[in-house]
Amino acid sequence: MPPSNKWCVRWAVCLSFVLALIPWTRGSLNCHKMCICASNIVSCSKVNLTGVPNDLPNYTSVLDLSFNNISGLRAQWTKHKLPNLHNLLLSHNRLNFLSSEAFVFVKQLRYLDLSSNLLRQLDEFIFEPLVHLEVLLLYNNHISQIDRTAFSGLNSLQKLYLSQNLVVRFPSELIKDKSRPERMSLLDLSSNRIKVLPIADLQALSAWVKDGMYLHNNTLICDCELYSLMAHWYIRRLNSAVDFKDDHTCVHPSPEKRVLRVYDLNTHMNCSTFKETDEEFYLDQTISLRCDTRHRDMSKTWMLPGNIILTPGNNHSYNVDKDGSLKITSIKPEESGVYTCFAVSEYLNETLYVVVKVHNFTLNGNNDSLNTAYTTLVGCLASVVLVLIYLYLTPCRCFCCPDQGKSKNLQEDSIHSSMLSVTPTHEDMATKAELNRHVAFIDPKDLQGQNGKVNPNGEEEVDEEAMQGKGKRKKSVADSISSVFSDTPIVV
Amino acid sequence: MPPSNKWCVRWAVCLSFVLALIPWTRGSLNCHKMCICASNIVSCSKVNLTGVPNDLPNYTSVLDLSFNNISGLRAQWTKHKLPNLHNLLLSHNRLNFLSSEAFVFVKQLRYLDLSSNLLRQLDEFIFEPLVHLEVLLLYNNHISQIDRTAFSGLNSLQKLYLSQNLVVRFPSELIKDKSRPERMSLLDLSSNRIKVLPIADLQALSAWVKDGMYLHNNTLICDCELYSLMAHWYIRRLNSAVDFKDDHTCVHPSPEKRVLRVYDLNTHMNCSTFKETDEEFYLDQTISLRCDTRHRDMSKTWMLPGNIILTPGNNHSYNVDKDGSLKITSIKPEESGVYTCFAVSEYLNETLYVVVKVHNFTLNGNNDSLNTAYTTLVGCLASVVLVLIYLYLTPCRCFCCPDQGKSKNLQEDSIHSSMLSVTPTHEDMATKAELNRHVAFIDPKDLQGQNGKVNPNGEEEVDEEAMQGKGKRKKSVADSISSVFSDTPIVV
Repeated sequence: MPPSNKWCVRWAVCLSFVLALIPWTRGSLNCHKMCICASNIVSCSKVNLTGVPNDLPNYTSVLDLSFNNISGLRAQWTKHKLPNLHNLLLSHNRLNFLSSEAFVFVKQLRYLDLSSNLLRQLDEFIFEPLVHLEVLLLYNNHISQIDRTAFSGLNSLQKLYLSQNLVVRFPSELIKDKSRPERMSLLDLSSNRIKVLPIADLQALSAWVKDGMYLHNNTLICDCELYSLMAHWYIRRLNSAVDFKDDHTCVHPSPEKRVLRVYDLNTHMNCSTFKETDEEFYLDQTISLRCDTRHRDMSKTWMLPGNIILTPGNNHSYNVDKDGSLKITSIKPEESGVYTCFAVSEYLNETLYVVVKVHNFTLNGNNDSLNTAYTTLVGCLASVVLVLIYLYLTPCRCFCCPDQGKSKNLQEDSIHSSMLSVTPTHEDMATKAELNRHVAFIDPKDLQGQNGKVNPNGEEEVDEEAMQGKGKRKKSVADSISSVFSDTPIVV
Repeated sequence: MPPSNKWCVRWAVCLSFVLALIPWTRGSLNCHKMCICASNIVSCSKVNLTGVPNDLPNYTSVLDLSFNNISGLRAQWTKHKLPNLHNLLLSHNRLNFLSSEAFVFVKQLRYLDLSSNLLRQLDEFIFEPLVHLEVLLLYNNHISQIDRTAFSGLNSLQKLYLSQNLVVRFPSELIKDKSRPERMSLLDLSSNRIKVLPIADLQALSAWVKDGMYLHNNTLICDCELYSLMAHWYIRRLNSAVDFKDDHTCVHPSPEKRVLRVYDLNTHMNCSTFKETDEEFYLDQTISLRCDTRHRDMSKTWMLPGNIILTPGNNHSYNVDKDGSLKITSIKPEESGVYTCFAVSEYLNETLYVVVKVHNFTLNGNNDSLNTAYTTLVGCLASVVLVLIYLYLTPCRCFCCPDQGKSKNLQEDSIHSSMLSVTPTHEDMATKAELNRHVAFIDPKDLQGQNGKVNPNGEEEVDEEAMQGKGKRKKSVADSISSVFSDTPIVV
């Protein structure tokens, strides 16, 4: 073969090789050959692309690039803004790199599918421009590191799938009150390597958030707190707990590191059986009862104890908030009972019971102590003044009429002492014995009243107060006052 | 090789063959081997399935079966209800059959992707159970027949993609007022074989519907109506027209069947240039001006002629309806002018101008006709009565004074006849000739007035009315009245 022919053959081979490669490389969009274009949809799935096609029409609303060989999303993957792009599908590629500016030209995205790729980390502020994003699919990647700011700016996020990755840290920033996307109803962290959960933060979430909080198939460390959390979710019939009951496992902290089912922990680790607790309140508190439904935006109606359906305006003590919570102002003990919330939506009817127990005393204990102290002080001063008046200003009948019968004198004394708790005078023991029932500090242990406080009047005072219908707190105030008369160490 | 060994080898080969086939056949769901399951997503794409897997979990929300070899969707493709299934993805399969009961167990579907399959027809009521379906993708199939009830029941439908099929008939049921899905904002019929459009129905649609009505790349027959329609869409900057301007083609009805660009038809077919017409109204009409925006649910504000911004309650003659239309009660000619609607939404600001022209006369033409009829009747009766009075009750001067001059007599007669349109008496022809100018029915064609009606008073009456500034309707009433005197066929 002459050399010129050889060159021709080589050139032809090269050309055919290059031509064969063309569909596989990044190039201009060709709707007829490479992609399927249906008005605002551009579908270029499974055409061996290694990069995003150039010159995408700016009216593109849905861009499907799934099942290709795209390895990275650079800052300039689209040369111009795609203001109408709502759906970007990049699943089943070889993505291992996302530029920090990958999404600045596609700020209107609502649905982003990055699932089944090779992503290893989510860098700081990576999704920040996507303020309209509602669904983010990141499952089936190799993500092990998630920056704490990675999901910042995703204010419209509703569903985030992070399943089947290598995540070790629970991304608490997604459930903290301040940073949590307001409408997020699904967070899938199942099948990862999370060891510890922020139990308290999770407990504080609304039921409709927990309903879509998937945590199964992780390497959680077994403990009773975890059991309580999940048992509560299961009792509430939350989807995340019920649908994957058998997949909620944890690793026993013993050296054998046995894998146990979370719902069996009460037997394996002697965790106490979970029970919903009643809600306890105190007299005159203003309280709010949550109607913590499994779905968001349900229509809610309350029924009070005694099966009274609450209708707007029929009782000024009860108000239903915007979120369906029942607000009760100045609650009374007789309002204890079962409050029922009926919630209705297109897909679910739910009935919730809240058992309320109201104590018949207020919760301002510290103020009471302060009042008691003041009362004691005032009472003390008053008694001093009265004693002084008695001692110095009373007409001195004893000195003027020393011949009158002892018994009468003693009786009068006893009346005064019982009224004013005067200190004993040095009389003979028989007199003292008679005074015992009336005068304080003679033998305090005989007068020991409720709560170890001295009650000089014994049972009589209690009966008197009971007759007057006074409450316990009133009684304790009375105790304090009587203690003034007994405890005051006045020695004349 | 001994026979037993041969059997072993054969058996092993058979087993390996069967095992190799397992992933390709319909079977129970195996999330670990065949599919990727992330909480409520079940993704079994590109795993050579020939049927939908059995035993799908009933919590499945998204089911992705794209890029498989599924050829039909039978009634029993799911054994039990999937009450949470929102997204069903079946694109890139070999679907050529949909059972009439294919969707009875998945009534909560909101997104159904049947694109890139081998579907040929859409049978009656096929999608009826899908009352929640919002997006239906049917592009890139072989659909040529669509039953008129195929889309019945799709009350929530927002987007329907039928591009790249073999559709011949425009599915008018999708745009008729009674059967149109209320929120449908996108209908893609591009790249089909449609020849004729329901122009009037399309014109009547709101701009936000037309904005997403894709009709390019069809085999439409060129005519000026089509040009007017599309020119209007283009002037309004509707996306469907602007984004695919060059793809709006039609076939010239000549034998050569040339393909022309629709927007060039004004030159090729001498279509008159499209121009938005002013809105014309009549005195005292109550009218409604549409603020026909390109997006739905925009916030709308009106500005009246004279740059007066309309605020609620500042003028009782103007009311803005729920849909943003401006309602004007009892419009006056001085209210003619340019009404401006400012529309604002998250994605678009739009300003629309409506030029209003108000005529200074009412539009109650029918009532006028009725009045004319009554007037004619009354006039007729009056003339009969007067004629009778004239004939029977007038003092008979003729008989009493037969000697008076003929000319004087004739003049008096002519005065009476011109006043009362009496019928001629049998006099000599010279007298008749003189009477010609005054008496009706002698020679009606000499008196032919406007619109073929007889006008005995000739031009004088018209001039008189013009001087008085009366309008056309008034003039025709005068015509009718005068015609009473001429047309009434009273023969004495």
